Amino acid sequence: MNAGIQSMQPRVYASGREARLAIRRREHESPTAGIAPGFVQGNLAILPASMAHDFLRFCQLNPKPCPVLATSAPGDPRLRSLGADLDIRSDISRYRVWRHGELVAEVSDLHQVWRDDLVSFVLGCSFSFEEALVEAGLPMRHIDCGSNVPMYRTSIATQRAGPFHGPMVVSMRPLRPADAIRAVQITSRFPSVHGAPVHLGLPGMIGIQDLAQPDYGDVVEVRAEELPVFWACGVTPQAVIAAAKPEFCITHAPGYMLVTDLRNSSLAIF
Amino acid sequence: MNAGIQSMQPRVYASGREARLAIRRREHESPTAGIAPGFVQGNLAILPASMAHDFLRFCQLNPKPCPVLATSAPGDPRLRSLGADLDIRSDISRYRVWRHGELVAEVSDLHQVWRDDLVSFVLGCSFSFEEALVEAGLPMRHIDCGSNVPMYRTSIATQRAGPFHGPMVVSMRPLRPADAIRAVQITSRFPSVHGAPVHLGLPGMIGIQDLAQPDYGDVVEVRAEELPVFWACGVTPQAVIAAAKPEFCITHAPGYMLVTDLRNSSLAIF
Repeated sequence: MNAGIQSMQPRVYASGREARLAIRRREHESPTAGIAPGFVQGNLAILPASMAHDFLRFCQLNPKPCPVLATSAPGDPRLRSLGADLDIRSDISRYRVWRHGELVAEVSDLHQVWRDDLVSFVLGCSFSFEEALVEAGLPMRHIDCGSNVPMYRTSIATQRAGPFHGPMVVSMRPLRPADAIRAVQITSRFPSVHGAPVHLGLPGMIGIQDLAQPDYGDVVEVRAEELPVFWACGVTPQAVIAAAKPEFCITHAPGYMLVTDLRNSSLAIF
Repeated sequence: MNAGIQSMQPRVYASGREARLAIRRREHESPTAGIAPGFVQGNLAILPASMAHDFLRFCQLNPKPCPVLATSAPGDPRLRSLGADLDIRSDISRYRVWRHGELVAEVSDLHQVWRDDLVSFVLGCSFSFEEALVEAGLPMRHIDCGSNVPMYRTSIATQRAGPFHGPMVVSMRPLRPADAIRAVQITSRFPSVHGAPVHLGLPGMIGIQDLAQPDYGDVVEVRAEELPVFWACGVTPQAVIAAAKPEFCITHAPGYMLVTDLRNSSLAIF
């Protein structure tokens, strides 16, 4: 056995629940990509109830970047539709705590900072549709390169709700034209995890001047016989919340997602 | 009333059957685009039974350019699935008769040339999916310009069956990227009328060197913020049959399609 290679592979669990319980027990403390194949992972945002209605309205106005999978009652750490025993205070291994827009702590448990007015939002993430694209045989260059998907702020404005507004952030995957058409078909089946692309082929039209300078993530090559294909990205709500500077807020740390009991296949609309 | 403008508009019939009966009675002798909104129109190919099996196999191997809506029994002029009283010998106003690959006549009735071994093939046509695109608010430049859609021979080979083989012909419609994505979604619902595009954005990859030089139809402008989007085209089987030079064959004349009783909406798969 080659321990060096093996250590590159994520530990794989048989279900979302097993992965989540391993995280809760602090047995799994690394990023969650690939740890529970077939199960939905989500982005987390936790806000005081005083801002929660505006944020939910923001998500409903901007469903492509902000597809809501579940929201909690104020103060309730459970999200039963995502897992019967899910506790949002313990089931992610790295959280970020923000005050007035400043990152004040990264923690592995929220019991110390929990409040009775906190509302949790879990938003769909691209892992779900990428799994469907890979199963269809489409190449995902950032995965093949072991890097993060490149993400860009665009000139596409989101629809404002209260203090929440800002540009849409998109992720980019290079695909050959016939594969891009297939990717539109496949991701159209998954509206709750960003759905179909929002743009392809002409980055300047959405305010992206240089594909080699992503605003988040890593650069990936776009080859001569490929088109850049752009999907609405879950970094959009993170950036919008940061800009709104709520007095208190919690998010997951990038890459450390909430692993749920939902199957990716259950999100397909046809 | 302005007779000059009015004469530019096609006569519109309330159903496919009414349009077809007007054609049979020689009351309607002009092209069929737009004459029966909502109803399926088809391309016609009639071949001797000795070649019919290979041609049907060709269509089944190449469903995107050759989507079969109906075939007849040898010698039978009826196609009941397309219209209870349909008679393929009288229900198109302009036919082309071919012998050994040469056009020998354009006729408005087939009774004089009918044979007991003739098999009719009706193939889906882009009018059906264009109607769905227009209903969705997408601009179709060739329609707005009153011209024919531009068509190109490509470097995409069809799958051979017996004597039938040759390059795929595609039609091109320029669309802004977000509209191109919507067009993929809409036309994916209509696999029996060419379905999703086969290519977009990079014409050189499919052997098209100059969009301003279509092999059939008219030039249309592709603007800076548009992508050329390419669909498999019903001219493919026409060109493949011409190249195979059957001893006898009949087709519709371009633009003079078979109008059926099927509704376009009935072809949508979801």
